[in-house]
Amino acid sequence: MMMQLLIRSEKDGILCPIPQYPLYSASIALQGGTLVPYYLNEATGWGLEISEVKQQLEAARVRGIDVRAIVIINPGNPTGQVLSKENQEEIVQFCKNEGLVLLADEVYQENVYVDNKKFHSFKKIARSMGYGEKDICLVSFQSVSKGYYGECGRRGGYMEVTGFDNNIKDQLYKVASVNLCSNISGQILASLVMNPPKSGDESFEMFFAERDGILSSLARRAKTLVDALNQLEGVTCNEAEGAMYVFPRIHLPQQAIKAAEAVNMVPDAFYSQRLLEATGIVTVPGSGFGQVPGTWHFRSTILPPEDKIPTIVSRMTTFHQKFMEEFHD
Amino acid sequence: MMMQLLIRSEKDGILCPIPQYPLYSASIALQGGTLVPYYLNEATGWGLEISEVKQQLEAARVRGIDVRAIVIINPGNPTGQVLSKENQEEIVQFCKNEGLVLLADEVYQENVYVDNKKFHSFKKIARSMGYGEKDICLVSFQSVSKGYYGECGRRGGYMEVTGFDNNIKDQLYKVASVNLCSNISGQILASLVMNPPKSGDESFEMFFAERDGILSSLARRAKTLVDALNQLEGVTCNEAEGAMYVFPRIHLPQQAIKAAEAVNMVPDAFYSQRLLEATGIVTVPGSGFGQVPGTWHFRSTILPPEDKIPTIVSRMTTFHQKFMEEFHD
Repeated sequence: MMMQLLIRSEKDGILCPIPQYPLYSASIALQGGTLVPYYLNEATGWGLEISEVKQQLEAARVRGIDVRAIVIINPGNPTGQVLSKENQEEIVQFCKNEGLVLLADEVYQENVYVDNKKFHSFKKIARSMGYGEKDICLVSFQSVSKGYYGECGRRGGYMEVTGFDNNIKDQLYKVASVNLCSNISGQILASLVMNPPKSGDESFEMFFAERDGILSSLARRAKTLVDALNQLEGVTCNEAEGAMYVFPRIHLPQQAIKAAEAVNMVPDAFYSQRLLEATGIVTVPGSGFGQVPGTWHFRSTILPPEDKIPTIVSRMTTFHQKFMEEFHD
Repeated sequence: MMMQLLIRSEKDGILCPIPQYPLYSASIALQGGTLVPYYLNEATGWGLEISEVKQQLEAARVRGIDVRAIVIINPGNPTGQVLSKENQEEIVQFCKNEGLVLLADEVYQENVYVDNKKFHSFKKIARSMGYGEKDICLVSFQSVSKGYYGECGRRGGYMEVTGFDNNIKDQLYKVASVNLCSNISGQILASLVMNPPKSGDESFEMFFAERDGILSSLARRAKTLVDALNQLEGVTCNEAEGAMYVFPRIHLPQQAIKAAEAVNMVPDAFYSQRLLEATGIVTVPGSGFGQVPGTWHFRSTILPPEDKIPTIVSRMTTFHQKFMEEFHD
């Protein structure tokens, strides 16, 4: 809906991270706009560098693109990084300076697994810098599909729209009203996510025990998978600081790349399909998210039940060893 | 989604009935297309006349509009008419001759209240005329919000797409996939609506007793409301053959029209607001659906509990008498 309102023609651009969740590329394409990519730096744990964003923004402007907004996914999907407070302040300042709408995908806000990182909402960051409603256009997205709740099938969520004129908000309500309403169980769940049990409530202790149990189990699963992936020949994997994914880089042998080309497949899709066929493990090839040309990745979730993780690791390891033997240069 | 695929620019037109459910005008506007109106004939029970549709189609073509599809709402919303088999055959033949996609809104297919009318799906009609997949592009819409189920809050439904090339169907799946999936309880309900209990099932008899109870109660409510409305001074109301609404015409006195203009309101909105304030009864002004210029209507549902209908009728009658006294010419 925001894309619908932001994009008027193919001359309107939206800055998006690469790798990115393909909902963004799809909705920009659907609205007939232009995706302006900025690359996350894998070498610094998928760091978001303002110099890179600025360079891409300027290059787009030279091409006559009116860049209207920037998408930030924090924690990152598929990359799992959690932005530092300082980095977020830079981003807010950049949006302020350049007059960009900040589209903050904050759906993984509960999913942070490392002690040295913490989720900060962009609204809180902007307000702490003294920027209020009149200073910056900020949209924050939240969903019942993620977090410790993970109720994807309920299709619930909301966006908080701040810094926009009332007549633009009227247009938002009008567009939303075409679909009448969202489904009722999604609405109920969104309300529950926004209002967790409070101290003194009957379910308070059980709720927090369950929540912490889920989140600490996810943290253990993430660590086990990252450690195992880093053991594999030619595979490097950044820490999954947050979100629900690991996104390892695979240095594929030339023989594997040739074999993929021979069957008309992208090399990482070839790897993922081989993995699926050999082990039943489903991963998404990095090419679905975008990546630096010539690099190959795949995304795996950290969601399988914790007791299944060792089997997954051992199957994946066996598969990878055989794959590398088969295609060794 | 169909509008998204059918409309390429403001030069693409979609034929829509007037009065019509405003979802159509809204989605055509959103996609930047042109609504080509055809008027239903109130004098013949909101009859759909092919001569009128043909005239509007030709007038649009003269204006350079590429008319791509026609929306038929059967049973009608807000008008409640049920098309005859012969009329449906004319429509199918017309679409075939003119190369139009037939968008059949058949969400009220279970809601038929008169013995001399029966719902026929356009697919059945087309097939009975010997037109198969290769002959006509037909999309039928169904929803869990209507019928005897009435689960509007669950946001479930489906469309059956027939007569389209596989590469167009691929595009449909692609566009649908951007939203990943519909909500799970809506999916479950849609499946239940498609597969009602069968003879021998444990719930078979209870289900049919309940269904028939709901539908015959709706039929009684529709008749009571139509009869009561036709008793009112200056009000004429066609039979509600189907759907969930009555759509009476109100012949407003000039004084009422002037009073509405004085407060900058459309006359039927003025009437509906006065009715709401005086009685608590919510109706939708005819101007929200479109109507022959200079005529005024309102839409009321037939959905209040049956035991409340007499009170509604008496409140409405009292209000109307006072309104007509206040504004008598």
